Amino acid sequence: MSIRWESSIHRELEMVEEEIRRSVVSQQELLTEISMHVISSGGKRIRPGVVILAFRAVGGSDASKVIGLAAAFELIHSATLIHDDINDGGKMRRGKESAFRKFGVQRALVAGDFLFVKGFQLGGPQNPRVVDYLADACTRLAESEILQGRHLRDPGISIEDYLKIIEGKTARAIEAGAKAGAFIGGGTSEQVESLGGYALNLGMAFQVTDDILDIIGSEATLGKPKGMDFLDGTPTLPLILAMNDGVDRRRISTLFRKKKKTSAEVREALRLLARSDAVESARTLARDFSEKAIQRLEPVAASPYKDSLKTLAKAVVERDS
Amino acid sequence: MSIRWESSIHRELEMVEEEIRRSVVSQQELLTEISMHVISSGGKRIRPGVVILAFRAVGGSDASKVIGLAAAFELIHSATLIHDDINDGGKMRRGKESAFRKFGVQRALVAGDFLFVKGFQLGGPQNPRVVDYLADACTRLAESEILQGRHLRDPGISIEDYLKIIEGKTARAIEAGAKAGAFIGGGTSEQVESLGGYALNLGMAFQVTDDILDIIGSEATLGKPKGMDFLDGTPTLPLILAMNDGVDRRRISTLFRKKKKTSAEVREALRLLARSDAVESARTLARDFSEKAIQRLEPVAASPYKDSLKTLAKAVVERDS
Repeated sequence: MSIRWESSIHRELEMVEEEIRRSVVSQQELLTEISMHVISSGGKRIRPGVVILAFRAVGGSDASKVIGLAAAFELIHSATLIHDDINDGGKMRRGKESAFRKFGVQRALVAGDFLFVKGFQLGGPQNPRVVDYLADACTRLAESEILQGRHLRDPGISIEDYLKIIEGKTARAIEAGAKAGAFIGGGTSEQVESLGGYALNLGMAFQVTDDILDIIGSEATLGKPKGMDFLDGTPTLPLILAMNDGVDRRRISTLFRKKKKTSAEVREALRLLARSDAVESARTLARDFSEKAIQRLEPVAASPYKDSLKTLAKAVVERDS
Repeated sequence: MSIRWESSIHRELEMVEEEIRRSVVSQQELLTEISMHVISSGGKRIRPGVVILAFRAVGGSDASKVIGLAAAFELIHSATLIHDDINDGGKMRRGKESAFRKFGVQRALVAGDFLFVKGFQLGGPQNPRVVDYLADACTRLAESEILQGRHLRDPGISIEDYLKIIEGKTARAIEAGAKAGAFIGGGTSEQVESLGGYALNLGMAFQVTDDILDIIGSEATLGKPKGMDFLDGTPTLPLILAMNDGVDRRRISTLFRKKKKTSAEVREALRLLARSDAVESARTLARDFSEKAIQRLEPVAASPYKDSLKTLAKAVVERDS
């Protein structure tokens, strides 16, 4: 990401990295190795960043209260990445081989479970309310995986169902992190709700942008091939828009429905999608979510942390990776 | 199991069933269906039973404090069964198709994650110490899966490594449940340790007996084919003993090492194992663990719950399924 949103919490994010590294140490070095393979592959750390910024934005002062919590959200995120790659057959992740390709399905599955547990171990003892935030987000994640599975290669999926999927897949966990951070930071219920609303919209903006990058992003910057969503049959917003009323809607739907797609077919679909209005429409929606996120910050007092949250909301839609 | 160990806590176990059923309700009915497929398939409920008995044995009186905790241990156990079956390719489980065979790997994997989360959601808010018990047990579980993977089809595995595997795979989670139950029930540290020691030995006795049943059990009673451990290359105690000094040790080792085993080869191995002394030696060890478990109960005052714990320790080694 080009805009540096994280500078105001640089030190806290370093502490989160240390906490994460400490927590994945295991008697079975292979578990540590698989964990670190995923964790150290240059994720954007948006989840722990939002936890800390929300904590700071409501006046939370003792950083030691929030580091474990921020690490918990990143660990659980890493767990879901490993399991998602197993489920999607995703071969590349952030420019590296995905965990199951490098270490095998069995070991990757266990490493994912291990990271889930470590996440709950770090986040759990803080407060019963925090456990509920974490667990609700994880429940929504599992539910959205099932919903997404039901709409695999489905050209008839509605935008409503799509939004429900990405809400559960991405936005709810970021919302939970913001709420937990603000709550632990001593925020009022209004502040907790505001920061939650910010983060929910941030997550939606982030995921829609992810969908766009799968179509028009640069493979070198993304660290993975383009068109993976289309190949896997995962519905994305530009695709749904193009299948609804683009000029090439029939051809795109036909290609999307196919169980086995050749790489020529994927390239053709990406070409048709890129030249449609769908990418631009999706980008408009992503920017709407980003603006809504910023609006939700109104009840939060001005601070460098609030500025960082705003910068982040802009950065997630303007990023190229 | 023929001996009824659970009669003293019949009502509590019914409440646990209700709690479990309530907690797996999801907007995505498929998640509930997969969860219930595993949960309602007649498990022995040893884990929640031990949690409740430990709670009662130290004088815990308000059952509502322990029901969620007991359910948490069963939910996490169910999660690991689903993931284990994916990893082992286990086709049958308690006389039913395993979850991944019936619902597919992707959905089963997600359902396992869902059950993990529900377990932590129920067990987490009780007390930070309980989260640690739960998480430590889950960590040991993941570690023992990796250790077991390293000794797949390994005729040279030591008894020490085997004991380490089953300790992590089975015994530590039962120990954690007993400690958590005793702790929440207001037990002294001595009582918590005693009941933990009981449960650790109970778990070892249980797992060694499981190993024996895979060789000489009745398929109708087990609800799955015999010889699955041998076929999968999972080291079991009778097998290790037979490979160490039985008369047929060379032939058994050769068969065990094979990556693809025919069903004739599995039958041959079971025949050789059944006629060796190894099964009897393993049974002796299982009974030793069972006796050690009962000895550890000494500091616990006499009560119907203590009696149930004793009965359970005897039942796990004398069971035929």
